Amino acid sequence: MKYGRTYNFSAGPAMMPEEVLEEIAAEMMNYRGSGMCVMEMSHRSKVFQQIMDEAVADLRTLMGIPSNYKVLFIQGGGTLEFSMVPMNLMKTNVCDYIVTGSWSKKAYSEAKKFGRVNLTASSADKNFSYIPDCSNLEIDPLSSYVYICENETINGTTYHKLPNTKGVPLVSDQSSMFLSRPCNVSDYGMIWAGVQKNVGPAGMAVAIIREDLIRTDLDDRLPIYLNYSTHAQNDSMYNTPNCWAIYCCGKVFKYLLKNGGLEAMAKRNEEKAAILYDFLDSSSLFKGAVCKEDRSLMNVPFVTPSAEQDAAVVAATKAAGFDNLKGHKSVGGLRASIYNAMPKEGVQALVDFLKKYEQEHK
Amino acid sequence: MKYGRTYNFSAGPAMMPEEVLEEIAAEMMNYRGSGMCVMEMSHRSKVFQQIMDEAVADLRTLMGIPSNYKVLFIQGGGTLEFSMVPMNLMKTNVCDYIVTGSWSKKAYSEAKKFGRVNLTASSADKNFSYIPDCSNLEIDPLSSYVYICENETINGTTYHKLPNTKGVPLVSDQSSMFLSRPCNVSDYGMIWAGVQKNVGPAGMAVAIIREDLIRTDLDDRLPIYLNYSTHAQNDSMYNTPNCWAIYCCGKVFKYLLKNGGLEAMAKRNEEKAAILYDFLDSSSLFKGAVCKEDRSLMNVPFVTPSAEQDAAVVAATKAAGFDNLKGHKSVGGLRASIYNAMPKEGVQALVDFLKKYEQEHK
Repeated sequence: MKYGRTYNFSAGPAMMPEEVLEEIAAEMMNYRGSGMCVMEMSHRSKVFQQIMDEAVADLRTLMGIPSNYKVLFIQGGGTLEFSMVPMNLMKTNVCDYIVTGSWSKKAYSEAKKFGRVNLTASSADKNFSYIPDCSNLEIDPLSSYVYICENETINGTTYHKLPNTKGVPLVSDQSSMFLSRPCNVSDYGMIWAGVQKNVGPAGMAVAIIREDLIRTDLDDRLPIYLNYSTHAQNDSMYNTPNCWAIYCCGKVFKYLLKNGGLEAMAKRNEEKAAILYDFLDSSSLFKGAVCKEDRSLMNVPFVTPSAEQDAAVVAATKAAGFDNLKGHKSVGGLRASIYNAMPKEGVQALVDFLKKYEQEHK
Repeated sequence: MKYGRTYNFSAGPAMMPEEVLEEIAAEMMNYRGSGMCVMEMSHRSKVFQQIMDEAVADLRTLMGIPSNYKVLFIQGGGTLEFSMVPMNLMKTNVCDYIVTGSWSKKAYSEAKKFGRVNLTASSADKNFSYIPDCSNLEIDPLSSYVYICENETINGTTYHKLPNTKGVPLVSDQSSMFLSRPCNVSDYGMIWAGVQKNVGPAGMAVAIIREDLIRTDLDDRLPIYLNYSTHAQNDSMYNTPNCWAIYCCGKVFKYLLKNGGLEAMAKRNEEKAAILYDFLDSSSLFKGAVCKEDRSLMNVPFVTPSAEQDAAVVAATKAAGFDNLKGHKSVGGLRASIYNAMPKEGVQALVDFLKKYEQEHK
């Protein structure tokens, strides 16, 4: 790769488009004649306001976000969202969580601090290797929302069909699949995503929330930063936002628009994932860790027959210039995260390497 | 200035050292042979861990932080700290706040959501243009902490002597003076600072907290991200931190160490401020907005006799290539923020311009 860059299979923070990084480097000392770097700009200046406005507008275009949804940029990542969602949305003091892996489990545990949380469905029985049937769940009639993690980064599962929530608003953590494929926003009450997996640098989450779910009766009670109303009323500028992340994500939004939008990304991501899954399905050494029909297009965990061999393969990939392929300790084995910015050539090169490794270690 | 850069007097985000920005640009496509940009690195990787460890170690050296204090990097900026401080530290349900301007007032209002907050002293009577005598305040004997904003960014005041807290831990918001002069950390129970004023990009606060003030009895009650114990137990890596801000701030810490540390910064900042204050004291058109003995070395608000003339001067400075000199609406007039990274030449050039303006508008 150019600049001696590596194929980086990290689950996040992860690869960003090379041309976006080139633009950022070129604008470092003086952003478009402003006389300053974006990191040095007052967030109240016209030049930064334009960066902000364009980022929001481009994201709206990319995802086709209806006008009755707010787009918010919030610091604190997924961990803060785990608290903000129940603190803001659990109006009835009851909600439903579907637990399909490490991240929905963390969200579920956190929500229990703030009200009654039903464990509506779970795939814990098979180490989170599948998505339960969600076509006819027992949704609590009092429930304020149904929560899912739509793509489990660690476990490698994804919802190819959304749960039937029986009219209750659906809240989805899309962190590790955000902008990887088209998404019908009006199917959701709220979507949120940490941007450090499929978009930009760590330190920010995007929240897309239906306006009627934003409450103002909490303004005197919640910690001010944890109130969606604070951010909504001030267009994410109540306080100084993570300006740099907004700038970088904004560039990625433009890059995606220029390259065919989410339809094109979906096609590309399906092709990339097929290269890897087809190999795993035909391999006698490597095996995918997830039930076929629930496989993620973004995070692909796989194993060899032993933990020792897993470790040997990780070391071999690292030596061959592929980075961050070690699986998460809760699943073991290897994991290839192949987000939007991972080139098809990177996946092909990895598969070529694994094929060769398999032949040499028969 | 090089690269057509401007003298940027923004109150924050604000100027960063040019050589730091040059280094960042040079490392964008491939950080020191890692094959990736810092924005793309797994926060669990060795290469990022080294960036993190060096940032903490360098800050400890710079400030001489004693070993019984933790250094934490937390997202959410000052606004989240306004909540976290009372939620974590108000063990007795009582605390004391000294209100000397916009930021301590915001912190005070937020703290009232979480317990009994004494307004121990205030300078609201004179529009926050001075620091009250804090040598013998009535500190509540039950108080968990005494809170100050040590440098009020908007109002332009600073504490040249810390309050006598009568043994109660002092909590200080140092955002707009952080690393501008030496600081005896053991005088404080906790120091926190948003880094976007005197250090790096927006999106992170540094908290320096005495270990015995970090509670573990809150682990099952507080929102997990708002618990200092979460961050302390995991060395600021419970979740993905703002890796980019840590990287940039780390570079600024190294730059400060290389350039004589905080003693040298204090000397330089005193010289810079003297150029501006000496002019204001001798001017017949411009007048400093703050009581002389409480003046900030970082934020210098000043006024002309009328709001119209204020606006005319702001427009003239902007046209002459000085940026962000408009004062905050609550004070009016102009404000020059002259943080560490503002060169002495920038302050001199501004004073030369204002002198000329004064002569031409007699």
